[in-house]
Amino acid sequence: MIYPPSSAPAGDWLGDAAAVALLTFDLDAEAPVLAAGEHYAADLSAMSHQAYGPRVGVPRILDLLGAYGLKATFFVPGVTAERWPRTVERVLAAGHEVALHGYSHRPLPDMSRDEQARDLERCLGALADLGVEPEGYRAPYWRLTRETLYLLPTCGILYDSSLMDDDRPYRLHLGGEQIAELPVHWSLDDWEQYAFLPEPDIGERIENPRDVARLWTEELDAMRKTNSLCVLTCHPFLSGRPSRLRAIEDFVQFAGECTDVRFSTASELAKLVL
Amino acid sequence: MIYPPSSAPAGDWLGDAAAVALLTFDLDAEAPVLAAGEHYAADLSAMSHQAYGPRVGVPRILDLLGAYGLKATFFVPGVTAERWPRTVERVLAAGHEVALHGYSHRPLPDMSRDEQARDLERCLGALADLGVEPEGYRAPYWRLTRETLYLLPTCGILYDSSLMDDDRPYRLHLGGEQIAELPVHWSLDDWEQYAFLPEPDIGERIENPRDVARLWTEELDAMRKTNSLCVLTCHPFLSGRPSRLRAIEDFVQFAGECTDVRFSTASELAKLVL
Amino acid sequence: MIYPPSSAPAGDWLGDAAAVALLTFDLDAEAPVLAAGEHYAADLSAMSHQAYGPRVGVPRILDLLGAYGLKATFFVPGVTAERWPRTVERVLAAGHEVALHGYSHRPLPDMSRDEQARDLERCLGALADLGVEPEGYRAPYWRLTRETLYLLPTCGILYDSSLMDDDRPYRLHLGGEQIAELPVHWSLDDWEQYAFLPEPDIGERIENPRDVARLWTEELDAMRKTNSLCVLTCHPFLSGRPSRLRAIEDFVQFAGECTDVRFSTASELAKLVL
Amino acid sequence: MIYPPSSAPAGDWLGDAAAVALLTFDLDAEAPVLAAGEHYAADLSAMSHQAYGPRVGVPRILDLLGAYGLKATFFVPGVTAERWPRTVERVLAAGHEVALHGYSHRPLPDMSRDEQARDLERCLGALADLGVEPEGYRAPYWRLTRETLYLLPTCGILYDSSLMDDDRPYRLHLGGEQIAELPVHWSLDDWEQYAFLPEPDIGERIENPRDVARLWTEELDAMRKTNSLCVLTCHPFLSGRPSRLRAIEDFVQFAGECTDVRFSTASELAKLVL
Repeated sequence: MIYPPSSAPAGDWLGDAAAVALLTFDLDAEAPVLAAGEHYAADLSAMSHQAYGPRVGVPRILDLLGAYGLKATFFVPGVTAERWPRTVERVLAAGHEVALHGYSHRPLPDMSRDEQARDLERCLGALADLGVEPEGYRAPYWRLTRETLYLLPTCGILYDSSLMDDDRPYRLHLGGEQIAELPVHWSLDDWEQYAFLPEPDIGERIENPRDVARLWTEELDAMRKTNSLCVLTCHPFLSGRPSRLRAIEDFVQFAGECTDVRFSTASELAKLVL
Repeated sequence: MIYPPSSAPAGDWLGDAAAVALLTFDLDAEAPVLAAGEHYAADLSAMSHQAYGPRVGVPRILDLLGAYGLKATFFVPGVTAERWPRTVERVLAAGHEVALHGYSHRPLPDMSRDEQARDLERCLGALADLGVEPEGYRAPYWRLTRETLYLLPTCGILYDSSLMDDDRPYRLHLGGEQIAELPVHWSLDDWEQYAFLPEPDIGERIENPRDVARLWTEELDAMRKTNSLCVLTCHPFLSGRPSRLRAIEDFVQFAGECTDVRFSTASELAKLVL
Repeated sequence: MIYPPSSAPAGDWLGDAAAVALLTFDLDAEAPVLAAGEHYAADLSAMSHQAYGPRVGVPRILDLLGAYGLKATFFVPGVTAERWPRTVERVLAAGHEVALHGYSHRPLPDMSRDEQARDLERCLGALADLGVEPEGYRAPYWRLTRETLYLLPTCGILYDSSLMDDDRPYRLHLGGEQIAELPVHWSLDDWEQYAFLPEPDIGERIENPRDVARLWTEELDAMRKTNSLCVLTCHPFLSGRPSRLRAIEDFVQFAGECTDVRFSTASELAKLVL
Repeated sequence: MIYPPSSAPAGDWLGDAAAVALLTFDLDAEAPVLAAGEHYAADLSAMSHQAYGPRVGVPRILDLLGAYGLKATFFVPGVTAERWPRTVERVLAAGHEVALHGYSHRPLPDMSRDEQARDLERCLGALADLGVEPEGYRAPYWRLTRETLYLLPTCGILYDSSLMDDDRPYRLHLGGEQIAELPVHWSLDDWEQYAFLPEPDIGERIENPRDVARLWTEELDAMRKTNSLCVLTCHPFLSGRPSRLRAIEDFVQFAGECTDVRFSTASELAKLVL
């Protein structure tokens, strides 16, 4: 058996909404470039491409969220917390949730069980140094393993957000423990739309932000009929650019006009699921 | 000589329609990921990405087909039949056709003649366990070989749906036997529009479903002038997502409005061809 | 020195037109697949994908050209002439020009000088068997070498259509000889828009034909201001599909409405240039 | 520490504009193809694809800039200056800025410190032969290294334009020296939209120029709110094609209509920053 047993949410996660939307931001910064090879540190352009996220993208995203009175969830790799502590503190100060995104942003399936345990421990430590006790986890590159999944409840983690076999939340039963799963999907992620960097190769797409907003809002609209959970995932180094911020704003405005879409943080939703 | 001899349909497959449309679904689930390497079973995210098909996509597709009173053809790999028997039973209970899609979803050209024969035998066995006597075959990845093609009539198969040298059905003469060919094309498949998974790499495209619907309906519209067969191929793990279901619905609605497009199952059409 | 010397056309190639358009078709059929590896002959789906061109695409294209009273130029690899002689005869019978496209469709830079000479000789022989004395050449994959270029005048060839350093025709001086160059470009080719075949990998794009027509007509429109030569290149295995034929028809109709665009065959134009 | 220290511009670079736009052109010509391998010189088609830039693209771009009374910045690799001196002279004669783009267009991270120093020296020499004393530098492929960056002030260079960690200019402090950084981004470059060449592989995209213009103008429009610097980067071998010139013209016209966007050369802006 590959998957652990799962079951429907224990609580009424939907309430009187037709769909629930989470705004999540993966604060990767330089982590994916360094995970691809330490020597990429010598490529100032590639490094600066990533540094745009914490330097410029995050402050703009915080302004946007503030203007709409929304709380979001930021998944932060340990290396980013260490490199950009002031940025993480600004996120916290604005009242947003900060959660785990691994330490090194290396893919878990490439690590042994021990390496995975160490990676988890180190990212917990890096967030603890900033006073954060995270309640959630998201695997780097959305590549979760059974090994790390079973470690999560032992660290006080309430939810994971890395699986794709549903578009509604559910519970995962891990031995005597359970956690909530808040499923994601590639089509609601900005990486597949905007990531362009040839060396290291992190993608080669530059879609028009208006088209991206249309992709996202049409999925949210359809999810109102299927009563689904819409987990939007953005990366400040990508979506912090001026016209891309507008795509997020389009999404937020569309959701607001629907009147039957509820925004939530991942942590709040996980507690309803459990 | 590479191709076996072929000839025009024996019967009036078109009737008084201007074009015929088949709705076909390849119920791949985890098969393509496991065929790329058994070790991918350790990547829960990749596995869950595929499991969305039988878990969530198929029930929604059955609802959609039911709402429009349409019968479709589901091509099911043997491994999917073994992993998700309840899902296949639901498809059968709703009155749809279930046909062969190989056992392991490995490409036939990568297998010896013996391996191909065994793969065919095993997928027949897996469907027989669910009470299915399939009448049709579709090669994994649309990569049919001469070896497997010549085996098909010996298993009672009436038609194949994997070749691309026409957009109208025809007969293939295989020694003393004949089968119908119901040709396919990449442009009428959802894989090339939506498949995104980096590891294993099964594609990197996330098109807007409305644009995909436009691609498909414009081809169907043009096929009304060329009196062609429009074989739409969808994968529940891809097209089961909320806004993508609407692309299928757009296609079905457009075909209905044409009034001169007839829907058929693959099996019904094959019998007219033969 | 890499390029041979060049000079402006000797004659008035533009006349009173604002731009000249050539409709050219590369009748590749199975040649590119077999050139990628003889073992691909065992993949009936890949082979049939290519065979669609001569079987279905060419007759439809001839009908379209006939309906608009247009003459086109078909570049035919030797292997296609040998595999599909009836198709080439139909093209000739409809009054279109047939020209050289190499024998094997292997890239010239991968061949020695001797192999290139033999490839050229064999494609001349294959067309001679069908009664054709070709006046033009186009390198497979638009990858022309100096070796083959200098051989062209010795075979009675008047023009090449494989270079990209201009969008107006010019003369190339090759020792004491000269030929006309009718330059091409990727953006006026259907391969980059439609070619999708994973094994062998000949591309992975499936654009909407209406969008392709828009790309081509906007370039033609802009070329009316720059007084350029618009060499449209299509492949019957790609553009013979129903809705893609409409993209060619859109282009032809747009050119007709312009009233200042003249259609020509490559051969007629080359004679004006020389 | 990887990055050198940076600080905000010393002068008022924005003035009373809402955003500043730079039109920059990388005059690569054959350099990237030859950098990928000297043997590509034998592929006349690939070479001619690149030669279109200096032969046809630059004169048209100069006409366009002249018609709108705009001054631009041309980054010229040393090899291009040597191969196409007349083209560079035309650019200078029209009053535009010419700046450094390396000698060989090889990526700096692939070179040792000594090779980088030699490459910089050689491109200075090649431009000096044309009477140019360049004030700016842009790394090939936007891949700047610390080694080359620290050499720039020693050569009299006032600014770099290769980093991506901001969309507003800033100062970089390099030991006792400082230079201005005028940051770029992939989404404001034509390479990612138009570059198509399979051998050597420099890209495989052919976007519609109208869509590209929309991408650029929407970013510029959003930058008027964030008071940013919009560095448009085009390549004459790509954007010199007829309908692509219109995309540049669309951008220029949109900027003009905004009335609060100021055009500048890179050099003028760098002096305000410093």
